[in-house]
Amino acid sequence: MNTEHLTAGLAQAVMSSVPETSAEAMKEARKGLLDFTAAAFAGRRDKGIEKLIKLAEEEGGAPTAPLIGRNQKTTPSQSALINGFIAHALDFDDVHSDVRGHPSAVILPALIAAASSGHIDESRFLGAYVTGIEVMARLGESAGRHHYEKGWHNTGTLGAIAAACAVGFAENLNQNELQKAIGFAAARSGGMRVQFGTEMKPLHAGLAAQAGLFAVKLAKAGFGGSDHALDGEKGFFGLYGDLERAETLLLNGWGKPWRIVSPGLWFKVYPFCSAAHHAADAILKLKAEHGLTFGQMERTDVIYPPGGDAALTERRPKTGEAGRFSVEYVIALALHGKDFSAKHFTSEPIPESLQKGFARIHRSYDDQIQPADNAVPKGRFTIVRVTASGNHVYETRIDCPKGAPGNGLSEKDIEDKLRLALPGEEEKAEELIKAAGQSNIERYLQLI
Amino acid sequence: MNTEHLTAGLAQAVMSSVPETSAEAMKEARKGLLDFTAAAFAGRRDKGIEKLIKLAEEEGGAPTAPLIGRNQKTTPSQSALINGFIAHALDFDDVHSDVRGHPSAVILPALIAAASSGHIDESRFLGAYVTGIEVMARLGESAGRHHYEKGWHNTGTLGAIAAACAVGFAENLNQNELQKAIGFAAARSGGMRVQFGTEMKPLHAGLAAQAGLFAVKLAKAGFGGSDHALDGEKGFFGLYGDLERAETLLLNGWGKPWRIVSPGLWFKVYPFCSAAHHAADAILKLKAEHGLTFGQMERTDVIYPPGGDAALTERRPKTGEAGRFSVEYVIALALHGKDFSAKHFTSEPIPESLQKGFARIHRSYDDQIQPADNAVPKGRFTIVRVTASGNHVYETRIDCPKGAPGNGLSEKDIEDKLRLALPGEEEKAEELIKAAGQSNIERYLQLI
Repeated sequence: MNTEHLTAGLAQAVMSSVPETSAEAMKEARKGLLDFTAAAFAGRRDKGIEKLIKLAEEEGGAPTAPLIGRNQKTTPSQSALINGFIAHALDFDDVHSDVRGHPSAVILPALIAAASSGHIDESRFLGAYVTGIEVMARLGESAGRHHYEKGWHNTGTLGAIAAACAVGFAENLNQNELQKAIGFAAARSGGMRVQFGTEMKPLHAGLAAQAGLFAVKLAKAGFGGSDHALDGEKGFFGLYGDLERAETLLLNGWGKPWRIVSPGLWFKVYPFCSAAHHAADAILKLKAEHGLTFGQMERTDVIYPPGGDAALTERRPKTGEAGRFSVEYVIALALHGKDFSAKHFTSEPIPESLQKGFARIHRSYDDQIQPADNAVPKGRFTIVRVTASGNHVYETRIDCPKGAPGNGLSEKDIEDKLRLALPGEEEKAEELIKAAGQSNIERYLQLI
Repeated sequence: MNTEHLTAGLAQAVMSSVPETSAEAMKEARKGLLDFTAAAFAGRRDKGIEKLIKLAEEEGGAPTAPLIGRNQKTTPSQSALINGFIAHALDFDDVHSDVRGHPSAVILPALIAAASSGHIDESRFLGAYVTGIEVMARLGESAGRHHYEKGWHNTGTLGAIAAACAVGFAENLNQNELQKAIGFAAARSGGMRVQFGTEMKPLHAGLAAQAGLFAVKLAKAGFGGSDHALDGEKGFFGLYGDLERAETLLLNGWGKPWRIVSPGLWFKVYPFCSAAHHAADAILKLKAEHGLTFGQMERTDVIYPPGGDAALTERRPKTGEAGRFSVEYVIALALHGKDFSAKHFTSEPIPESLQKGFARIHRSYDDQIQPADNAVPKGRFTIVRVTASGNHVYETRIDCPKGAPGNGLSEKDIEDKLRLALPGEEEKAEELIKAAGQSNIERYLQLI
C-alpha cells in the first residue's frame, strides 16, 4: 500500500467485504438499526423537519422513500437529506469513537433511500451498514484528531464517502464505479463545527447521506471522474486529513474485527452531545449519593484531558438546542432536579434562573491524569467536583459513561429506548423490534 | 474589521451593494451574460448532460427552470446543477484572475434557477451577478494562491458562497438571513483539482450553484444556523483559506471598482483551460510567421513562471476532454494544422500519431524572468520555443493572451462567439443578443 492507491484499495476492500458471515457484526448492526430508529422517532417532531419538508414539497418529485415517523414519502434524495436530519436532530443517535461523529445518521438514511428505490438486494442492507461504519471509522482514524480539532465536523466531512461506499456495496457496484463514486462524494465533503448548537448540525448528516447517494447514482450513470480522489498530496487526505496516517490506518486489518464490533457503536442514553455524557453520569451519581441541589452548590469544576471538551462549544447556551453542546447546562439541569429528557433540549429558551448558574461552573484541563484502560473515547475522562456550602467537596470521575462500549446498552435497553420514543404506539414499536431483529428490511421500511 | 466579523461584514457589503448605478459594471455584466450563454450553447450537446438529465428525470419534480439549449425544464435545483455543467462543459466559459476559477458558470445558473421560480425582481438580476462576481473574486483573493495550489478547485470551493450571496441579493434577504445562507453554503464548499480533465470538473460548477440556491432557500425557510461561519480560526477561512488575508482582502474597497470591471472577466477564445491560452496564442503566432509543421519540430519548450501551469494537470492526455488541461495537446494540435474548435476537445480519443509527439514537448519554469505589467493573470507569462530541423530556433512570449482583460473581446466578438455556438439558429442568436443587450431577463429566460 502506498498513498497513490488509497482509492483503489478502499474500493476493493469495500467490494470484497463479507460482513454477513460475522454473527457479532450482524448483531451489532441490528442493534444499531434499532437504536437509530429510536433516535429518529424521538426526534420526529423537531421543528426543523417541517421546514425541510416544505422545501421538498415545493420541489416535488416521485415520492418513493419514507420520512421516518412522518407517514410521508419523498424522493430518495430528499428522504436521505431529511432522515439524516431527523435521526440526528436530538443528538440522541449513536456515535463512534474512531469517527468522532455520527455514522448511522448518515449511512442508514442513504441505505433506506436506496432500498426504497428498489435498487438493492435487501439481504445486503445490514452488511452494507457494517461496511459503511468500517469506512467511516477508518476515514476518521486516517483524518486524525487534528481534523476535528481544526474545526471540521466529521459527520459531514467523512460521511459522504462512507455513505457512497455503503450504498455502493448494497448496489454491487464494480470496482471502477466505486472508485469514481468515492471521488464524487469527496467533492461534497464538508461541514464545520461552528454549526454545533444549530439546526445545521443535524443537517450535515442529511447532506452527507444525500451526497453519498448521488455519488453512486452518478457512478452508475457512467459519469466521468477521477479514480484516485483520495490519493496523493492533492487528494482528499492531503486536503482534509493526514495522508501519512491514511497510508497505514485506512485499510490495515480491515474487518478484523469489524469496527461496528470493536470499538463499537456508542448508543446514547441522553439526548445530547456524547462529550457531556461522562459529566452527566457523574453529576447524577453525586446527586444520588449526596442529595446535592443547585442552591447548595457554590462552585463546580469539570476537569477534562486537554481537548476533551472540544465538541462542547456552548458555555453560555440560551436555548435547549444549544444546550446539547454545553456541559454547564447539563450539570445545571441535574442540580435543578430536572431530568435529561428530550423536552429540555429543544429550541425553547433556557430559563434565566438556570442560565445564571452557568458562571459557577468552570472547565479545566489536566494532562497529568492517566486515562483509564476502559476509557471511551480512548484517552477521555471527566471529573466533576462540586464545592457545596460549608466547604464540603464532592468529587467523582467517569471514564466510560453509560451507553459507551464497555458499559453499553443491551438489546433490551435499546428496545426500551425505542418503546419510549413511540408513546401510545406500542404495537408499532413491537413490530419494528421484530422487523429489525429478523433483519426484515422490507417490513422495516413499511413501518418507519 | 476583525476576523470575528467577516460573515456579518460580507452580508452587509452584499446587501448594501448598488451595482446598478455603475454603467461600466452593467455593461460588463451584459457581456458576461452573453459570453456565458455562448459557452453554454457551444457545450449543450456534451455527453455528460444526457446522464445528468436522466438522473433528474428519474427524480421528477416541478419543471419550472430551463436547461440551456435543451428545450427542457426541470426543478430549479436540477437546473442550477445541470446548467452549471453545461456552461463549464467545454471550459469555454469566462475565468477571473482573482477567483482563479469560473465565476459565471456558478453564479448565473443559480440566478437563472431563482429567476425561473419567480422569486426575484428581474431588475436585480444583473446587479446580483455583479455582486456575486465581487464576492467570488474576494473569496479567491482571501483564500490566497496556496488554496488552489494545495489542490482545491476554487470554482467549487468558493462558488457556493458566491452563488448564495448573488441569489440572496436578488431575493432581497435581510442581513441575518444572508449571514445564515453563507454558512449553509460553506458546509457544501468542496471540489478538488484531481477531477480536472473529467466530467466531474464542470459538475463542480453545477454543485456549487445548486448549493448556493439551496442555502438561500434554507435561510428563507427560517432554518437555524451559525451567523459566523466565515469567522475565526475554526470558520471557513481558517479551514479552507487564509484568515489573515481575509481580514484585509475580503471587504476593503468593495465595488471600487467592481471586480467585474477590473481586473475583469476573461472571455475565452478557445475551449480549453485558460492556463494554456498563452501558449496557444504563441504557437499560432509562430506558425503564422514561420509556417512551422509538426514534422519539422524536434523539440518544443514551454516556459512558465513556477506554478503557472498548475491547472494543466495532463501531460499525456488520451482524450480531447483531458486535453483541455494539456499544453502538450494544444501545441501538438496546432502543429498538426488542426484548429482549436470544440470538436477536438470531446471525450473522443486523441489519435496515436498526435499522442506520440507529446514526449517532444517539455515544460520548464523560470523565476528570473520579469512578468510584464499587463500580464494576465498577474505574474504569468508563457514562452514557447520551437527547435526545428536544421537547428532553427523560433521563440515567442505571450503575457496577455487574446480574450484576457487588456486584450479583451469586444461586444461584437462575444456576439460572434454566440452566433458561432448557434449554427442554423441565426434568429435565436440575434434575439438572445437583443435580450441580453436590453437586460430583458424575462425574454432571455424564454430563449435559452
